[in-house]
This record gives sequence, C-alpha cells and structure tokens, in this order.
Amino acid sequence: MLIMGRLKEPETMTSGIKTHLFTKMILDRCKTVLILSSIVCTLAVVISLRKLLSYDGRFSKPFSPLPAGLYGNYIETVSDSTPSWVPNHQNGVRDAEAVVSLNAALDMKNNGKADKALKLFQHAFALSPKHADILNHYGEFLEDTKNDVVKADELYTLALTNYPEHTGALVNRQRTASIVENLDREMLRKIDDKRDALQSIPENNSALRRAKKEAYFQHIYHTVAIEGNTMSLSQTRSILETRIAVSGKSIDEHNEILGLDAAMKYINSTLLYRLRDISMGDILEIHKRVLGHVDPVEGGHFRRTQVYVGGHIPPGPSEIQQLMIQFLDWLNSEDALDLHPVRYAALAHYKLVHIHPFIDGNGRTSRLLMNLVLMQAGYPPVIIAKQHRHLYYQHLQTANEGDVRPFVRFIAQCTERTLNLYLWATSEFSHMVPAIGQPHILTGEPMEEEDHLL
Amino acid sequence: MLIMGRLKEPETMTSGIKTHLFTKMILDRCKTVLILSSIVCTLAVVISLRKLLSYDGRFSKPFSPLPAGLYGNYIETVSDSTPSWVPNHQNGVRDAEAVVSLNAALDMKNNGKADKALKLFQHAFALSPKHADILNHYGEFLEDTKNDVVKADELYTLALTNYPEHTGALVNRQRTASIVENLDREMLRKIDDKRDALQSIPENNSALRRAKKEAYFQHIYHTVAIEGNTMSLSQTRSILETRIAVSGKSIDEHNEILGLDAAMKYINSTLLYRLRDISMGDILEIHKRVLGHVDPVEGGHFRRTQVYVGGHIPPGPSEIQQLMIQFLDWLNSEDALDLHPVRYAALAHYKLVHIHPFIDGNGRTSRLLMNLVLMQAGYPPVIIAKQHRHLYYQHLQTANEGDVRPFVRFIAQCTERTLNLYLWATSEFSHMVPAIGQPHILTGEPMEEEDHLL
Repeated sequence: MLIMGRLKEPETMTSGIKTHLFTKMILDRCKTVLILSSIVCTLAVVISLRKLLSYDGRFSKPFSPLPAGLYGNYIETVSDSTPSWVPNHQNGVRDAEAVVSLNAALDMKNNGKADKALKLFQHAFALSPKHADILNHYGEFLEDTKNDVVKADELYTLALTNYPEHTGALVNRQRTASIVENLDREMLRKIDDKRDALQSIPENNSALRRAKKEAYFQHIYHTVAIEGNTMSLSQTRSILETRIAVSGKSIDEHNEILGLDAAMKYINSTLLYRLRDISMGDILEIHKRVLGHVDPVEGGHFRRTQVYVGGHIPPGPSEIQQLMIQFLDWLNSEDALDLHPVRYAALAHYKLVHIHPFIDGNGRTSRLLMNLVLMQAGYPPVIIAKQHRHLYYQHLQTANEGDVRPFVRFIAQCTERTLNLYLWATSEFSHMVPAIGQPHILTGEPMEEEDHLL
Repeated sequence: MLIMGRLKEPETMTSGIKTHLFTKMILDRCKTVLILSSIVCTLAVVISLRKLLSYDGRFSKPFSPLPAGLYGNYIETVSDSTPSWVPNHQNGVRDAEAVVSLNAALDMKNNGKADKALKLFQHAFALSPKHADILNHYGEFLEDTKNDVVKADELYTLALTNYPEHTGALVNRQRTASIVENLDREMLRKIDDKRDALQSIPENNSALRRAKKEAYFQHIYHTVAIEGNTMSLSQTRSILETRIAVSGKSIDEHNEILGLDAAMKYINSTLLYRLRDISMGDILEIHKRVLGHVDPVEGGHFRRTQVYVGGHIPPGPSEIQQLMIQFLDWLNSEDALDLHPVRYAALAHYKLVHIHPFIDGNGRTSRLLMNLVLMQAGYPPVIIAKQHRHLYYQHLQTANEGDVRPFVRFIAQCTERTLNLYLWATSEFSHMVPAIGQPHILTGEPMEEEDHLL
C-alpha cells in the first residue's frame, strides 16, 4: 500500500525516467528489507545460542527410566499418609538453661575438650534451636574443630533468619557463603561427571537395562515407603510384574504402587520428550495417576479443604489456583531454567510440596515432578531412600524456615547415590562408585534384612 | 404503567367522581387479579395431583440398601470384561434343513407326540432362528401343548420383527398381546405386594438390618461376578469389611469390588433422597467410582474409541454425547416416570447399556442406574445372580433385536427373587417366599459350593 501510494506521485514524468526511477526505488526497498532481515536473523541466532549455552546440561538427551519393553502401559494410582515434618519446637522457653549450656560449651572448647563441648552445644541447640548466639557459636565450633563449613554456614544462616542484625553471624556468614557455594558447585560437577559417564553407556547395554529395571522398582518402593507403605522391595516388584495381590496387605498399599507405576509410565510416554512448558494440566495428570487408584474422586483435583502438615500450615484452598499459576510461571521461567538441573529440580519439588495443592499424594507428586525435570536433563529419577525419611522432612522444614540450601544439597546427595546405583551395576564404570554390600549403596547405612531378599 | 395511562384520561371530571371511579377501577382490577391467581393455583394443584397420582409407587419412601452405620464412607472403583452377548447367528444358511425339521415337528405334533415335536421345533429354531414360519409354528406349539403364552408371544413378536406382514404371526400376536400384558401386570402387582410387606418392617428391625447387610454383599458379589470377577462371596465380604487384599487374586478384582462399594455409597448418600432429575453428571459420577479404582484416567469419562460387544456394535464415540442427552430427556420425561418402576428401571438399564458410553464398566453402571431408580421407588437394589449371566445377555440381545419385554420380565423376576431374600430373612414375612436351601432363593437352582461357605 505504501509503495503504491508513493508511485502515484511521479505520474507526470516521461515514461523513460519513470521506469528508471521505479526500478531504482524497488531495488532500494529490496536492499532495506534484506538488511533489516539480516539484523533480525542475527539477533535471533545470538539469543538462541545464549539460551542454549546458558547451561551445558540443556544439551543432554532425556533419561528414560524404563528399559524398552519392560512391560506394557498400565494406568492406575495411590495415597500418602501426610508427613509430619516438624517436631513441635519449644520456642525460647528454656533459653536460660540453653545459655548456661552454651557457656559451659564455650569453656570446654577453650580448654580443648572438643567432645564434651560438642555435646553441650547440641544440648543448647536442642533446648533453644532459634537462639542466634547459640547458633553462631555452635557454627564457629563446627568450623574450627570439625572443619564442617557447610553445617556451620547453615547455622549462621539460621541465626540470621531469626536475628538479621546479629553481627557475629553476619561476619561469619560473609566468610562461609562463597566457600559453601564453591563446595556445592564442586559436588554438582562431580554429579555431572557421573551423569556423563552413565550417558556414555549405549541404551542396549544389557547391564544398563538390568540396572534401569532394578532402579525402577527401587524408586517406586522407596517413594511409597516414605509415605508409610509397608510393602517390601520384593513385594513391590511382584505386584508390578504380576498385578496379583499380596496376602495380608491393604488394597490401598497395592494401589499406591500401581499409581506410581502409572504416573512413571505417563511421564515416560508423554512428558519426557516433549519440548513445550510444563503445564497445570501435566501436574494434574500426574496426580490423577498417583492418587486415582486409591481415590478416583480426588485424583487429579486440587483440594477443597484446609490441611495441616505437622508444623506447616499450607495455604487455604481458595489460594491454591493462584499460587499454582505463580509456581508454573517460575517453573517455566528463564531464571529457573538457567539453574543447574539438580537445583532446579529440588526447588520445583520444594515449591510444590510447600503449596500442598492436593488432599493427598503431594509428596509423591512433587518427587515425580522433580524427577521429570531431572530426567529431561539426562539424570536418572532420583531415589530418596526411605531410611532418609526423617532427614528429608527435616530439610523441608529448614526450607520452610528460610534456608532451602540444605534440602537442595540433600537432593544432590540422593542424585549422586542414585547415579552410583547405575554405575556400580555396569562394570565399565563400577570403579567410580564405592563397593556395594555393607554399607548400602543408596543409604550409606547397613542394609536392612529385606534388602537382602532381592 | 397501564393503570397510570388510563388514569390520565378523566382529568377534567370533578374531584368526587374522579375519586369514586378511581376506587372502583382499583377494586375491579384487584378482583381480576384474584380470579386469575385462583385459576392458576387450581391448575397447578390439579397438575401436581395428577403427577403424584399417576403411579402409586411414587409415594414410596426410598429404599436405603445400607443399614445405618454399617461402615464408613469410602471412595474407590472397577472394570468389566466386555460381555459377549450374541452367539454368532448363521442367518438362513441352513434354512432348508430347518424347514424339513419344522415339517417333521408339525407331523409329530399332529400325531400327539409332543416331546418329539418339541425337540424338532428346537432343532429347527436353532438352525434358523429368524425364520418366521418356524417361529410362528413353534409359538403355536408352545401355546397349545405347554400353555406357555408368554414364550409363544415372544416367538410371534420375533417372527413379526423379521417379517412384519406374516399373517399367521399377526393373528396369533393379536390374541396373545393382551393376555401377556395382563400376566405381566399380575407379576408386577405381586412384586408390589412384597415391596409393601418389606416397607412395613420398621427400619430398626434387627432381622431387616442383617438382611440388608447380607444383600449388600451379595449385590456387589454378583454384579462384579457377572463381568468375570472370580472373588467368592466370602472374599467379597472380607474385602469390604477389612480392606485387606486376598492372596492370589488380581488387584483389579479387588478394585472392582471397592468401586461398586464406593458407587453404592455415593448413590445412597447423594442421589437417593434427592428430588431433582437424574443428570449427566450423576451418571458420570457413578461411573467414576465404578471404574476409577481400576482405571482413574477413564473413570467418569465417555469413551473416545469404537467398541464391539459381541454382535452388538454400539454407536461411535462422536454420537455418544447426543445419544446421552436424548437418553436423559427420556429418563426424566413424564412418559418414563409414568411407567411401573420395574419397567422404568429395566428400560433405563437397557437404553444405557445399548449406548455403551464408556470404555469399560457399562454393565455395572447400567445396573446401578437401574437400582437407583428402583430404590427411589422403595424397592431394594435388584441382584442379578451370576448364575443367570447368559440368560441376562440373551435377553439384552433379544431387546437389541426389537423386543425388550423379555428383558423387562427377567428384571421383574430378579426383583421378586431379591425381595424374597429380604422377606425370607425377616420372620414376620417368611411365609410369603419359598423355603430357602435347595434350591437357592436367588437363582431357583441348586446352590453352588461357595454359597455354602457364607
């Protein structure tokens, strides 16, 4: 339209000049369009490259937890007895006794009696777990005598959460923050080395296939056991392989296992290789499978009542929709995607379980979302061992109190242990992980009787 | 506005006349309004009375199948292996042999050899089940020698379905139609007597409470057994009372039982005493519970694929929504509600299972809808014994072929047998029903071994 408008002006000129000017004008406009197009294309390429290069792990092929043809697609679901995260803290009531214990601890420390000092610090901390002086001195003690900078940093952070102006904690935290950040990066680098080793094994390697199958059963066994399911690993395996009931166990416990299986298969077949954002519908579909077999009415729906999770009171039902929209905005944001996948996955887990959008199955659904994110980045689905149940809830509680890093660190440790499980099973890389047996590869603890029954 | 407009006209009159006319006009209008209101009210009362009086059973208090506090509310669900209704008919291929057999049968009949004639008629019918002459002669034989007017009428009807102009069948059908209708009415009257007897027993009668509990388990046992569930009655009872799995049975079979239980409790607590129409949502909510434990993804949703049920090909998935709307229009229509409740319930069952709106659980959902309708009219939920499975599918097939009356009659028989189960258990009325033992009260057949295990 613009070109046509301009062309009408020189209508009085002679035909030759008109033709010449017309051709020139067309050529000029073509040049302009070409230059503009080039600029736009270059910008697009630069932006794309920046996005792609922002984290190496983004290039990883997704990790499929199922060896091809392990067994068919089933669709079923489960329920968790809501975790009680928090031992009921007694805030500041016994502060006086705690301070006496603290002073005694400092005396012992100064006299070089580290063991006695440790016990007194622990006692003071147990009595008054939010007392900034106790937290700060306890941290200094751990740093000085145990060289445990990570734990010390957690204590300084906790002190500052409760008293943001605490001078001693501020100074200490300033020193430890970067040390701890470097230690964390080092741990993530080690994890990525193991992930790369795992990814270098061909999909059709028979040891890898066996390891995947074994880890698949272990993952389901541990994630339902954390919520109180009493099935053993071999019973879990039998249920998934035969779909036949185990005598004496509740039907709900069977359905919890079927639910995890259905949700894992849904993730593996539908979400894992998809490129678009994770949506509200995706999370509801996961939950429908997780809880639906036990409770088909609540499966796939947000709760309509208030719930209480130990000391944590999740948001009221009327707030859930809005909080979930905000959560998904974060989940699909550039900032979140720029994080290391293990950090991203752990935060996604924490944020979802904090909202606690469902009447039941929040823990299992959050762990599955975490594992979806990890698998998309090429990591195996992380197994949180049921033996670490209390540690797991304790770290979630610490996150509720303001410091999410211990939880992220815990998830990183679980990721590494899960990677060990795979690498140990494949002879090429078994030298990268500690020998199995005593202690258990997943828990670092002596094996339980039922673990021998595999 | 109208009054104000008219009032402006006599503005030139004197004040006294104006006031008088004004008052009169107001009074006239009040009278008119009163008369019109009375007419409307009278009409409303007449219509309401007509609706209420159109069937006596409408006054009945609903039948609650659960003795108060039997056990709490659970929410769970199931799957049915799709019934194969129809033995694959061989249409007309062996007509010649069938006609030979028919002629031989007629010879035997004329020679007074009824037993041989019966066998030959059966043979001819088996060879050519849609041959109008065979159907008509076979019917006449049953009427003449066995006095079985009902069966004869079914055969004449079937002959006319295939050949509407068949003179012999037309004449015969004209004669038997009213006889059979009277027999049917008589059967329904007998059923209503038994229902009235049952309703006269106080709710807190301990024998009635025991009978309800027993019938509740039997109802669930038979309705899942019809679809192939292999749990015994005592296993069904154990699952519902303990929620503990039975060794060696599939988890699906457990979930089918939990699903029926959840759906029955939903009907009992939500739909039974409600006055408004049965909605699409109600049927989906029933199905969600019936199927949801086995398949939480499909539970509560119409199927999205074509299904095949033996010889019956239900409508395509794109037609289901519209057919269900039509079905619900009928279900809530005056015509349907004017039917005897047993006829209404049986037709509702047949129409729903004919549409076959779900991928699985159509039979169980249709039987539950039938029982919802019956319970609302004061009848207990009807038990269709698994021993009658083939008869049940055969009558559904006959309905598909054009004659729904045998199916309605079958449901009426099941209703009477179920009423017998209750009345026999309550000493006051046990004289109204046959003695229990051999044969079984529900099936009229020798008891199976597992029935003794109760």
